[in-house]
Amino acid sequence: MTEPVRSVVYVNGKYRPSEEATISVFDHGLLYGDGVFDTMFASYGYIFKIDQHLARFARSLRAIRLEIPTPIADLRRAVIDTVARNGLNNAYIKVVATRGISAEPLLDPRGCTPTVIIFARPYLSLADPAKVSTGLHAKVTSIRRVGMQALDPRIKSLNYLNLVLARMEAYAAGCDEALLLDDHGYVCEAPGYNVFLVREGHVVTPAYSILEGITRETVLELSAELDIPSEIRAVSPYELAVADEVFLTSTAGGLVPITRVDGQAVGSGKPGPIFSQLTRAYDALQESGRFGTQITRAAIG
Amino acid sequence: MTEPVRSVVYVNGKYRPSEEATISVFDHGLLYGDGVFDTMFASYGYIFKIDQHLARFARSLRAIRLEIPTPIADLRRAVIDTVARNGLNNAYIKVVATRGISAEPLLDPRGCTPTVIIFARPYLSLADPAKVSTGLHAKVTSIRRVGMQALDPRIKSLNYLNLVLARMEAYAAGCDEALLLDDHGYVCEAPGYNVFLVREGHVVTPAYSILEGITRETVLELSAELDIPSEIRAVSPYELAVADEVFLTSTAGGLVPITRVDGQAVGSGKPGPIFSQLTRAYDALQESGRFGTQITRAAIG
Repeated sequence: MTEPVRSVVYVNGKYRPSEEATISVFDHGLLYGDGVFDTMFASYGYIFKIDQHLARFARSLRAIRLEIPTPIADLRRAVIDTVARNGLNNAYIKVVATRGISAEPLLDPRGCTPTVIIFARPYLSLADPAKVSTGLHAKVTSIRRVGMQALDPRIKSLNYLNLVLARMEAYAAGCDEALLLDDHGYVCEAPGYNVFLVREGHVVTPAYSILEGITRETVLELSAELDIPSEIRAVSPYELAVADEVFLTSTAGGLVPITRVDGQAVGSGKPGPIFSQLTRAYDALQESGRFGTQITRAAIG
Repeated sequence: MTEPVRSVVYVNGKYRPSEEATISVFDHGLLYGDGVFDTMFASYGYIFKIDQHLARFARSLRAIRLEIPTPIADLRRAVIDTVARNGLNNAYIKVVATRGISAEPLLDPRGCTPTVIIFARPYLSLADPAKVSTGLHAKVTSIRRVGMQALDPRIKSLNYLNLVLARMEAYAAGCDEALLLDDHGYVCEAPGYNVFLVREGHVVTPAYSILEGITRETVLELSAELDIPSEIRAVSPYELAVADEVFLTSTAGGLVPITRVDGQAVGSGKPGPIFSQLTRAYDALQESGRFGTQITRAAIG
């Protein structure tokens, strides 16, 4: 039996050892995926852009009409406290809120008492670090991203089976990662990642049917600082075949190069110069502590 | 704090009191909706079409590439046992399987140990029984059902937030229930229900982007027995406006009449004659024990 690595977990205002960090099997978060989350990270003792993450979390809550009893300011303190209690300077942090439980487990959100969970793990990357140096091989999957008319990908919801299945399709094809098209056939996301490509010195990233990624936003900010022109627009799968570079961005892994798509090398087949330039800038940004909130017990009052 | 009503719950081969029936917050079923379920019911001491339900559950497992350690034959015994241990003759029964937990809670299904849950409650109906006699008022929601290219609605997955949001949209409009269109604009489902309408004495039900409902199948079988012609085909929203009758079918509630759609009366504005005829036949079928598996301790060996 696989056991999660031990840690201290916040569950509804209490801190529990991970083996006792549980929810009821009747929680609507489990039964219906009725809930949302956000993922943050800390490095060098700083949580990166915590307020942007919490603002996005609040937007996700609003989009699914879920009101939790914990004000965002209290949640902010609890996030910092959870990281501190786990003694982490470099952390993968997750906040989850579900509709919770009601008297009976029917598909009805009314009368539920919400559940709020926060956990922090030593920093985790979605991509195998051994593969990041040479670049991942990606597959454009037959599985499409859920359309915004059904469940907007901007909502970080507990409904990511679609992304899991895309990943499994990529693995079954001997690839490391999936690239998903949206319901109109445009490139949108990889599981847990936003997508970027480079054409003629411009960085290009999809505009629609995507998560409003904070690492994506940061890469766009860094591009502007480095005078690299950027374009936010619809991206056709054709552009993956002709791109000079392709890379992914995520809170859990930063910038990750894709060097092969559906068996065909991207550009030179190696992580490209603009990817490398942006990665250096991203790493320097983390080291600077800019946009960071220090992990101190003092900070939680 | 809302508490679920007490019962005995099967969790990974053990029977636990409901207040101790929990899963880890790191379970991928919660974090990513990575899992599937099936809902059955028992009446008059018989579980209805248990093998059809378990066959559908097995198809859902296969569709998400999830292998659970429990053979379906053992699961069948555990379902009967769970109902028996709760002393129920009329029951709402749910089986859930999730990808489970791995060492770290990343969006990666590899290396997970699955979780299997079975619970049984006194029979529950999705619709308010007080409203069923006069018929529900439904809203065709702006929220569409998730498309089959993203996550086939035939998979009974833990990703039902889309359906929850449709229900909330209907409630906000003062309606009792939602009717969802698929990504092409055809009528597909209500949350937890299949949809039927009656035109010129024919029962009509959508063919695509729908759950393979067992109550739906039963209603089609009963229609054949009663010499009511049936049509399984694409249904345009126009047909809701001109139907003589509209009704829903679900394991959790049987046949439920819709007497108003978007503020307009359906036919006479009352539950119609074909709905009533099929409901009588459905109730008689339950009472007969046909397709039923008796809830006995003996049955579990």
